[in-house]
Amino acid sequence: MSKTITPLSEVGLFGLIERIEKSFPNRRESTLCGIKNDAAIVATTGEELISSQNLMLEGIHFDLTYYPLRHLGYKAVVAGISDIIAAGARPSHLNLAMGLSGKMSLEAVELLLEGVAMACQKYDLDLTGFRPSSSLTGLSISTSAFGFAPKKKSVTRSGAKENDLICVTGDLGAAFMGLQLLEREKKVMKETGQNDPDFAGYDYLLERQLKPEARIELLTQLEEAKLAPTSMSLVREGLAAALLRLCKASGTGCNIYENKVPIDHSTTTLADEMEFNPLVAALNGGEDYEILFTIPLEDFQKIEKEGKGLQDVFVIGHITPESKGYTLETNAGEEIELKARGWGNEEDKN
Amino acid sequence: MSKTITPLSEVGLFGLIERIEKSFPNRRESTLCGIKNDAAIVATTGEELISSQNLMLEGIHFDLTYYPLRHLGYKAVVAGISDIIAAGARPSHLNLAMGLSGKMSLEAVELLLEGVAMACQKYDLDLTGFRPSSSLTGLSISTSAFGFAPKKKSVTRSGAKENDLICVTGDLGAAFMGLQLLEREKKVMKETGQNDPDFAGYDYLLERQLKPEARIELLTQLEEAKLAPTSMSLVREGLAAALLRLCKASGTGCNIYENKVPIDHSTTTLADEMEFNPLVAALNGGEDYEILFTIPLEDFQKIEKEGKGLQDVFVIGHITPESKGYTLETNAGEEIELKARGWGNEEDKN
Repeated sequence: MSKTITPLSEVGLFGLIERIEKSFPNRRESTLCGIKNDAAIVATTGEELISSQNLMLEGIHFDLTYYPLRHLGYKAVVAGISDIIAAGARPSHLNLAMGLSGKMSLEAVELLLEGVAMACQKYDLDLTGFRPSSSLTGLSISTSAFGFAPKKKSVTRSGAKENDLICVTGDLGAAFMGLQLLEREKKVMKETGQNDPDFAGYDYLLERQLKPEARIELLTQLEEAKLAPTSMSLVREGLAAALLRLCKASGTGCNIYENKVPIDHSTTTLADEMEFNPLVAALNGGEDYEILFTIPLEDFQKIEKEGKGLQDVFVIGHITPESKGYTLETNAGEEIELKARGWGNEEDKN
Repeated sequence: MSKTITPLSEVGLFGLIERIEKSFPNRRESTLCGIKNDAAIVATTGEELISSQNLMLEGIHFDLTYYPLRHLGYKAVVAGISDIIAAGARPSHLNLAMGLSGKMSLEAVELLLEGVAMACQKYDLDLTGFRPSSSLTGLSISTSAFGFAPKKKSVTRSGAKENDLICVTGDLGAAFMGLQLLEREKKVMKETGQNDPDFAGYDYLLERQLKPEARIELLTQLEEAKLAPTSMSLVREGLAAALLRLCKASGTGCNIYENKVPIDHSTTTLADEMEFNPLVAALNGGEDYEILFTIPLEDFQKIEKEGKGLQDVFVIGHITPESKGYTLETNAGEEIELKARGWGNEEDKN
């Protein structure tokens, strides 16, 4: 099958905007003016506006040698809207800007936007802004996501109280191990020249890295269980970073338990195979897009009623006074201090 | 004077956020949660939300060899909020994401953010989001600007009607000629090794390139003159691109006059010196951040009352039926077709 390769310059950046309009129908009444305009216009009804800005850069956040473009577009949306969900709100609108290098073809950009469109459909979002630009420095994708929440219903990082239970959704470290797997196979391919990557048994890890989903169902679960988290944060740069930022914002400490941190079986298997500590993947990996939140101790029952909506939510510890610091109790009974990338003296990747 | 150079890794990206918090006080009651949180939370009152996403990339939108960082930060804000103004709304909130290469020092980033803070103060904006990230591909700056407008008061590109007058603020082509001047002096410096640029007499052009302002006062002028534009658009990639997009969105044609296009004296002087057509700078240059708009023919009187608020606004032509195309009447009486960069077959820069 021969592939058509159209240089982007043939349609131009304005032409590109016109071309993709039909792939992004407006689903929401509140969208008064979408990608046809310089600025997006959205009707509001007195609710609170939740917004978040995200930037993904080639070489830092993705490697085009193994990243399928459609997946990348999908992931950019998931990464963008996850912050809104982690503030307790449902994302509704998305603006997108992209820096496109001259070596990208029109077809490549369209694949990328197909992924964006798939995610918009899946998460019921209207794309209200699209601004392509040229780039001399690789592909960059910037999103701005919006959502609306009833007054005082959104949740911030700063409301955790002593004795609150610390909860997290899903499992952690899988996206990070998926990345290690891709990097390993890339290296093998480079050395042997053979394009025959061995991903057997690790589908889940690849999916978590290449096509993560946003935890929107958590909001429904919380509503149904009549649970109001005291604080919430996105797990984007590993559990430790999310937890430390939440505690610092709340003026508290925390204590979590190694054996409570949810880690998928395949994460552990690959970590063992690669002689890597799976706990480190969970604490300091990244791109989990899971939600960390705290609830009052007295709501413990609501979390534990399994099968009644709070599947995939795990209590991993509790909030302590600030003076107690940020600690993890290992399976061996040791207490170690939680540390996060990103506060200096360490390699920053996100 | 010795300068301190602190590697960014010493404070880390999270540390950077904490460090700059005090430079960005919240000025607006509507700001419920700002840069301390993953997501911004802003109160709404049933007005329409106007938003716009902008991305500035090293090598495309700026050259750090001559761009002072403080000015660049300022310009990023101006570029971000200008789309909101061009929709007829006052910008109020801004989210910022930046890709920072490892070679940037903490002090450099702080200079950049000083410029951002200056612009936030000048334009009465709250910075509600700040997300720094590492970058392997130079500096990138992404902004998302917001504003609110009463229902049905915002203006889009698509409302121009036949016989409407076409108006534009300020003057055009100066930022483009400022860029040519900087590029010329950069080349001279490279060739001679001497750092003694000759900018005499061209202060205005440099200012328009390096420290543009947003046309927020136009909104006040329009209100005072009780003028409701039928359509509006930002002049970002030259007058021709802005006008063509406005006409295409409105389903109209246009006719403008060469002798009405506002061009500053120094733009013409430098263009002559460099043997460049100043009209081309105005039509196809870029980064003017002026506002193009249309008003009903019967409002002509309101525009013309000079000194009564509509200073710096110029009528340059009128809207025609779509079948008439997009034309410019030259001083020699010739009619030429308006063309814009960005619709393919031409070099795209923005």
